This record gives sequence, structure tokens and C-alpha cells, in this order.
Amino acid sequence: MTTGYPTLDGALAPVAYAGDRVDVLDQTRLPARAEVLRIATPGQMADAIRRLAVRGAPAIGIAAAYGIVLAAQESCAPEHIASAAQVLRAARPTAVNLGWALDRMLATFASHVDAEPAAIRAALLAEAQLIHREDVRGNRRIGELGAALLAQGARALTICNTGALATGGYGTALGVVRSAWAQRKIELVYVCETRPLLQGARLTAWELGHEGIPFRLVADSAAGALLALGGADVVLVGADRIARNGDTANKIGTYTLAVLAARHRVPFYVVAPTSTLDPDTPSGAEIPIEERDEREVLAFHGQPVAPPGARAWNPAFDVTPHELITAIVTERGVLSPPYDESIPAAVA
Amino acid sequence: MTTGYPTLDGALAPVAYAGDRVDVLDQTRLPARAEVLRIATPGQMADAIRRLAVRGAPAIGIAAAYGIVLAAQESCAPEHIASAAQVLRAARPTAVNLGWALDRMLATFASHVDAEPAAIRAALLAEAQLIHREDVRGNRRIGELGAALLAQGARALTICNTGALATGGYGTALGVVRSAWAQRKIELVYVCETRPLLQGARLTAWELGHEGIPFRLVADSAAGALLALGGADVVLVGADRIARNGDTANKIGTYTLAVLAARHRVPFYVVAPTSTLDPDTPSGAEIPIEERDEREVLAFHGQPVAPPGARAWNPAFDVTPHELITAIVTERGVLSPPYDESIPAAVA
Repeated sequence: MTTGYPTLDGALAPVAYAGDRVDVLDQTRLPARAEVLRIATPGQMADAIRRLAVRGAPAIGIAAAYGIVLAAQESCAPEHIASAAQVLRAARPTAVNLGWALDRMLATFASHVDAEPAAIRAALLAEAQLIHREDVRGNRRIGELGAALLAQGARALTICNTGALATGGYGTALGVVRSAWAQRKIELVYVCETRPLLQGARLTAWELGHEGIPFRLVADSAAGALLALGGADVVLVGADRIARNGDTANKIGTYTLAVLAARHRVPFYVVAPTSTLDPDTPSGAEIPIEERDEREVLAFHGQPVAPPGARAWNPAFDVTPHELITAIVTERGVLSPPYDESIPAAVA
Repeated sequence: MTTGYPTLDGALAPVAYAGDRVDVLDQTRLPARAEVLRIATPGQMADAIRRLAVRGAPAIGIAAAYGIVLAAQESCAPEHIASAAQVLRAARPTAVNLGWALDRMLATFASHVDAEPAAIRAALLAEAQLIHREDVRGNRRIGELGAALLAQGARALTICNTGALATGGYGTALGVVRSAWAQRKIELVYVCETRPLLQGARLTAWELGHEGIPFRLVADSAAGALLALGGADVVLVGADRIARNGDTANKIGTYTLAVLAARHRVPFYVVAPTSTLDPDTPSGAEIPIEERDEREVLAFHGQPVAPPGARAWNPAFDVTPHELITAIVTERGVLSPPYDESIPAAVA
């Protein structure tokens, strides 16, 4: 990997602590440019999350944790920390990892609230880096567990970016691909370009290229033909939030892949750390779905694609019902239906 | 409609005879610019078809017919006409209307082969314009028949462009929308942007805007969420070739919409003139599917979206199996299953 990117323990990371600031790789500029943002305040971090400079459910959880570290550098007053957490929590609504990481940071803060500011700051930094390292370690375990599910020579279909850029630095669905590739089990990866923001074309293609893993980019609409022609043996997707019954919110288009996979009897695996499990949300119907600015659909790199006055509907996520999910691969094991039993057990 | 576009009988047409040349509206430039190509030779017409300056199965049939008119202006030698027809026929493989229109032109030529060149040219021009006017007349009938299938206040979902630009000048699936709108039966149209070439965003949005028909553009991948949320009551699509059993080749992504519509019990109508029916092709398995240049996926308006070295798979069409098609709306009536009976009957 080119030097100059944020790293953790020597590996590419979407975000990294760097003394009095946090470095964030601006993913909106990839693959054309690798710009590192120097984030100094929790407000700047919330903004980076909101505008997708850092994205991917696990990665935004980690970024938010570092946001609390930055808040404590400004002031360790409880109201300041609480206010920073609130701003970060509101940055995006769908990924549950964001709130999960903030709750861990707030618990750490609460247990050190009477300590010296320097001790509080040290504890918060340690907790943020623990969250970060745990995610990477969990991803590697997920990769092993997921790779074991694949047949030799598998051709995988995936959507969005679920790799190093979306996590602490390894990947969930793409972590499975990386692990399977290391075992020479993967033959080819089909990558949905993932409109409107093209995380597949821009980010997943970039990561796979760096790893030397062979892939073909496809328009999202070509997944149906691919599966109908028998071109893929497995579908691997990430998750932004998994409800107690297994219903899964993930990048818009995921639900369609699940419907197609079921029709063509191709296994459909959701791959996510347990921090993405949300046993407090009973089903997908209760997951808040972010609708983003319609200009993401109406223009491309600032260049309009639709005529003036055109309107768009731009949901960022959809919900895949649990009955279409073959299994959920987590660092604590491969969860099988009935998910309303296996999910609470994995979190407990 | 702005003046300066090609017209037939006063209405916008993608292609129009203009004396010693044929005017073709360059649809690759829409909606940013309305450039009219002055096509003087059958080779230029084949090139315009190949690079999608004119596209849409009925429209490329009409364009090819005018291409034979241009060939006859060069020479009425049988070998010259045959060679021009061959070049035009090879321009794109999937739409059957292309061969259908050329066969009509060649039959006209054959029945006038002993006449004076001026008489041959007049007969060929008359036949091309008859094909063109028949398509528009047929579209209007299709519009009536299709609109009758819709419930009051229907919200329709469509893909690609199947309007005036894709046909002689009215539309197939979008013709149904136009007719239903005239009857105040349509409430809203959801338009799949239609990657990779964005015919939905660029062309359908442009046509609907001109007609004042309310619409929302969606990423192709958002159709699943739309149908899951009950946002559309009917799916209307065009066709490039319909096999004898009803299997239908159409723009990549159509098959996925059919699978989703079936899951959500939303009627899925294929809308096409009988010139799109191909009773000589037994099933979708025998329809040739055009794969286009991977750069259509890898770059956008010449600007790369994927990293250097990335590869793509870019099928232009997919096949929707007949069992997912509620009915096929043609100018000779609404065809119902079993299609291997209703399709041969409609063509006979």
C-alpha cells in the first residue's frame, strides 16, 4: 500500500490516531486521489462521517470513538463529552456501530470521570484504540469463518465496500474474500459498482486491485443476468444494522441481491462484527433508513446527468428480510436461523 | 418541444428523412445538448446505431429502413443494397426490429428491382416512412390498450427509455404512461436511471419533463426497496426481442425488476410492437445478447470511476423468462399466457 495513508499496526486503516489529531482518509476522493484529512474536533469528525469521507458501519463506529478522544482534548467536562457524543451519534442514522462505539466510550468516560484530565484522555484513547484493534482482530476471525463456507474456486458477488476502508482495516464481506484468496479458494469477485456513490467501483475495485485479487466490475442491474447465467456461487454482503430477528439493513441494492440469490439458490451471507447486531431492534421495520440528498443521483462528480428540474428518491439502505439470509458470519461464529435465538446468544 | 429536432408529421422523432440525408438526434448528447446528425450513407447510419446515437428497438428498425433509402440514393444495384442491408443488420445483435425492418425494405426493393432508379428510390422512401408511421400509429394503440390495464392513480416503475426517442415518436412502455397521463390515471413514474448509459436519467427524465408528467429518478438498485415499501403499482418495460415462448430480452436490469415484481405481486407488463415479436426464436436461450465495451462501466463521460487496470462485465441486455411476465401489450392486443399460443397468433 502506498505510504502516507492512515495506518494501524502498519496496515491501511480508514482512520488513525495521530497525536493531537485524527487522520481520516477522504474516501470521497478515491481512487483518483488519496487525501488525508487532519481532524481536530468532534464536530469535524461528525462532518467527515456525514459526508462519507469515512463510511462503512464498523469504520464510522471507530471514527466516532476517536471523535470522543478529540472532545476530551478540548475539555473533559461531562457536558462537553455528552454534547460531542450527541453530535457524533446524529451524524448518520442507520449503522448501529456508531451508537455502540459511542456507548463504550461514554462508559469509559463515566468510570474515569473523577480522574485527572490526563488520565481520562489516556483511558479514552486506550478504549478507542481497543475498539479499533478488536475490530481488526474480529475481522480476521470473520475472514477465516467465512472462507470456510466457500467452495474451492468460488466466484463471489458483492456490493458496496466492505473491506479495509469500511472497517478497522481488514474487512467483513471483503475480509472473507481476502482470507479465501489467501487460501486460493476464490477464483473471481464480481463487484456491483454500487450507485449512486460507486463505492464498489471506486473503493472495492481499488482494494482488490491492491491485493491482486481478480475481479469484474458490473452495473448493479447486471447482477440478475450474472446469477441467471450461473456466474456467481455465493453472495457476500456487509451490514449496517442487524435486527434481533435477522432482518438486515445494508447498502441500497442488497435486498435485490438477496431476492435474486434465493431465486437462483445461491447462498447469501451477511458478514458483520457482533457490534452490528442490534438485539434492541425487533425487526427491519424499526430500523431507521437514511434518505440522502437527491443530488447524489441527479449529478455525477458535480456534472448533472438528468435534465434541470428532475427529482430523485435516494434511500441509502434497504432491508433484507431474515428469511433470505443463509447465515450471518460474525467473529463469534456463523449464526444460523432462527436468528431470534442465535443473535441474542451471540451478543450475550 | 424545442424546434430543430427531427420530426415526423410535426412530432418529435429520433430520426427523420430530410431530402438527400436523414436527420438523427444524437441521443448520446442528451439532455445536455440536442445535436442533430446529418446522415448521408448507410455506413454512417450503421455507425450511429452502433454507438447509440439512435437506440431503442423500434427506432433502430426505422433508422435502418432509412439507411436503405440512403443506400439507394448511392446506387440501386442489387449487390449495393444487399451489402448496405448487411452492414446495417450487423450494427447491433439483440433487437429483432432491425432485421424485421430491413427485411421489409429488401422485399420492397425486390418487388421494384426492374423499375427505374427514381421509382425504386420512391418506393423505398415510401416503405421506410410507412414503417415509421405504422410504428407511431401502433404505439398510440398500444398506449390505449396499456392505459386500460392501469388502476386510477397508478404509480409506475420503468427502466431505460421507451418513449418517443426509442420508437417512431410516441413510445411503448412510456407510450402507455403518456396515454394514461392524458387520461389522468398516472400519479407518479419511478424511473430507473439505467446504468451504465443512463438512458433513464438522461432520456426518460427529459421526455417526462417535457410532457409535465411527475417522476422520480432512482438508482437501479433502489427498485427493490421501492417495491418492498409498496411504492409502485405496476412495472412497465419495453423489449428488444420477444421469443416465441414469451421470454423477453430487454435492457440489463429488466429481469431483476421482473423477479422483484413477482415477489411483491405487482403486475409486470412488457410493452412492444409486434415487430419485436420473434416467433422464429423458440426461447430466450437463443436470443443473442450484446456485450458492450467495458469502458461504459469503468468511466463516466470519459472520466474514470474505477482505478486503472480495473475490468468490467457489460452485458447490454438480459432475458426475462415468460413466467414472470403478466402480459405483453402490443398494437394488436394484450397478449396473455400461454405465449407460445398468443405470440404466433398475433404475428399471423
